[in-house]
Amino acid sequence: MTLDDTTMTTFDTLIDRRGTNSSKWDKMERLFGVSPEDGLAMWTADSDYATAPCVIDAIRRAAEHGIFGYSWEHPDYLNAIAWWQENRHGWKIDTDWILTSQGLGNAIALCLQTWTEPGDGVVIFTPVYHEFALKIGKNNRKVVECPLKREGDLYTLDLEDAQSRLTGNEKMILFCSPHNPSGRVWTVDEQRAVAEFAERNDLFLVSDEVHQDLVYTGHKHIPMALAAPETLPRLITLSAASKTFNIAGQRTGNMIIADPELRKTMKKRLAALDYAPAVLSVDMITAAYSPEGAKWVDQQVAHLERNRQIFDAGVNAIPGLRSLPLQSTYLAWVDFSDTGMSHDEVIARIRDDAKIAVSPGPSFGIGGDGFQRFNLATQGARVEDAVERLQRAFADLQ
Amino acid sequence: MTLDDTTMTTFDTLIDRRGTNSSKWDKMERLFGVSPEDGLAMWTADSDYATAPCVIDAIRRAAEHGIFGYSWEHPDYLNAIAWWQENRHGWKIDTDWILTSQGLGNAIALCLQTWTEPGDGVVIFTPVYHEFALKIGKNNRKVVECPLKREGDLYTLDLEDAQSRLTGNEKMILFCSPHNPSGRVWTVDEQRAVAEFAERNDLFLVSDEVHQDLVYTGHKHIPMALAAPETLPRLITLSAASKTFNIAGQRTGNMIIADPELRKTMKKRLAALDYAPAVLSVDMITAAYSPEGAKWVDQQVAHLERNRQIFDAGVNAIPGLRSLPLQSTYLAWVDFSDTGMSHDEVIARIRDDAKIAVSPGPSFGIGGDGFQRFNLATQGARVEDAVERLQRAFADLQ
Repeated sequence: MTLDDTTMTTFDTLIDRRGTNSSKWDKMERLFGVSPEDGLAMWTADSDYATAPCVIDAIRRAAEHGIFGYSWEHPDYLNAIAWWQENRHGWKIDTDWILTSQGLGNAIALCLQTWTEPGDGVVIFTPVYHEFALKIGKNNRKVVECPLKREGDLYTLDLEDAQSRLTGNEKMILFCSPHNPSGRVWTVDEQRAVAEFAERNDLFLVSDEVHQDLVYTGHKHIPMALAAPETLPRLITLSAASKTFNIAGQRTGNMIIADPELRKTMKKRLAALDYAPAVLSVDMITAAYSPEGAKWVDQQVAHLERNRQIFDAGVNAIPGLRSLPLQSTYLAWVDFSDTGMSHDEVIARIRDDAKIAVSPGPSFGIGGDGFQRFNLATQGARVEDAVERLQRAFADLQ
Repeated sequence: MTLDDTTMTTFDTLIDRRGTNSSKWDKMERLFGVSPEDGLAMWTADSDYATAPCVIDAIRRAAEHGIFGYSWEHPDYLNAIAWWQENRHGWKIDTDWILTSQGLGNAIALCLQTWTEPGDGVVIFTPVYHEFALKIGKNNRKVVECPLKREGDLYTLDLEDAQSRLTGNEKMILFCSPHNPSGRVWTVDEQRAVAEFAERNDLFLVSDEVHQDLVYTGHKHIPMALAAPETLPRLITLSAASKTFNIAGQRTGNMIIADPELRKTMKKRLAALDYAPAVLSVDMITAAYSPEGAKWVDQQVAHLERNRQIFDAGVNAIPGLRSLPLQSTYLAWVDFSDTGMSHDEVIARIRDDAKIAVSPGPSFGIGGDGFQRFNLATQGARVEDAVERLQRAFADLQ
């Protein structure tokens, strides 16, 4: 995929999100002390460009219809999800396997509430998406942090170390694949090792594959269900169109569960809660998971690939800073530890000098110290601006 | 409010909902054996006309913006809900009191799961919205049916009888106000009696006020919180724009909780579940709960008032049938018991001769035998058609 004029217009046209009820822009001052007046919002994981035209058209059609009454089952929607998994990820699923959640965070919560009890341990491989630990805590389960190993620019699993951290009280793994914040696209072998670890310790395996579609040249996401099919009796795969199509605010995600017993248990929970997707979300996702949507995603990935090249080149030119090369996701993971500065000093320079709101590394758990996460899902000009701001803020290191 | 040309255009233009993923029309054959080819869908409670133009405009604006990223807190949305409660129902609430659920059914489930345990008894006054008993059952709580008293055309509470049915194991009342399916708008005195009953038996009181806006001339809905303010420490009020604006498919409702302790408990549950409203629902409801939305609702109520007059006049002309005069809701509650026919015979005539899909009375619990519920939220022409169909189907009674 190369960048053409259409792509650049789609993803590079500056949009002012201030005052649009955008958490990323409208809450940055309160949360990070960076004014939206002259600051850049590069924290929470949504994009600064509009969703795919086919999704917008679906909303327009729904407005035209004007009736938003009761609706359920949604065969077109389920078929679209199945089509996407098969055509984009080579995973042939039955539409029966798809249960809808209120987004990724809600799906994690439902898994925790369904298959663990208060006090049970839940394994996460850190640094990892901060919501994992938060959600485990809010549900009164115990976070079991197992650090990844860093070898140069690459994070790998250290399952021997992980094994030594278990107490026997663990019931579940929350696995992030592709991995946020390191961007790792796990290999088949790595995933098989995680599946064996789950089997050996009798743990449910929740595979968060929400970043499955944002993978860069030379890498390929393999669903856990394909990498380790023997794990299906304990596997719950979470996916969503939220990151891929910038519709996280619609709060709709999937739990794909091949095992009939697991599925039955979760279906009962959803029925008791009376959960079903909103009709506009159904319309949007049905339109997104289509050949037209796929083409738009390819263009977006090409745009993001260019953004990360600009960002990495600019940031890595600053002595002491290292932006790890991303295999996937639009979330750059930058190591500031070789600056020799304290966390507070790094934060102060990013906030007060560069005026960028970022996600602080320590919130991602063990291994996050010294890091900051930068969201690159924005216009190229904003990424260039961010690089210049950082180069100025850390100019004394040159 | 009188019917003018605008009103008649808005609510009387025939819209074909077949093939639009409408449960009411597209599932009627499977559920009730009535073909949508030549049948009328008058069962589940949504409307056959479009929502308010201000709501549709809000969707169009959102499509124009095109970004559906993370968004939370939504002060405009909360202010709009508070404005509506104060201006339409005289209830001044703090925006803090408003917690968003995934619609009425989900709110009931959350209340059950938060304030009762499996096996606990939950009191309902029957006949009543069938989802009450279904939801209690799906959550493994015990349905405690307390029949209403029928005096002529009027249903009233029989709390003495209800008291005799309690075992001491009850923890909650689900109260439907205004009442579906009888259409009763409860008086202040009746509501105070329910509040005292809750107090005497130490029951949480969940007041489902989802039909609050669809009230006919001569009646006025009083929120339980105003009727019996002393009940606030045990009161959870449920409301939604779903019926009022025909957006039930968007699956968004409110729990309004004045008591800080109750609110804290529910907030923790919502946080553990990671529940928040979808951005398009927020936009729609913010637009709905406005002066423009209020005007549209007034027009709708005038339209529904005409529909129920047409329906009642036509149906009550058939000997043995009695459509109870509605004080509220668009759900006509028709007593067929004086026909002397069996339930099966009545059902067969409605299904096979009149070809109308209706909600069968027995599903509403004790007191529902002999009744059928007809949804009148449709075009006037369809109501006239329904009357003619019923007159033909029961022609031998004339």
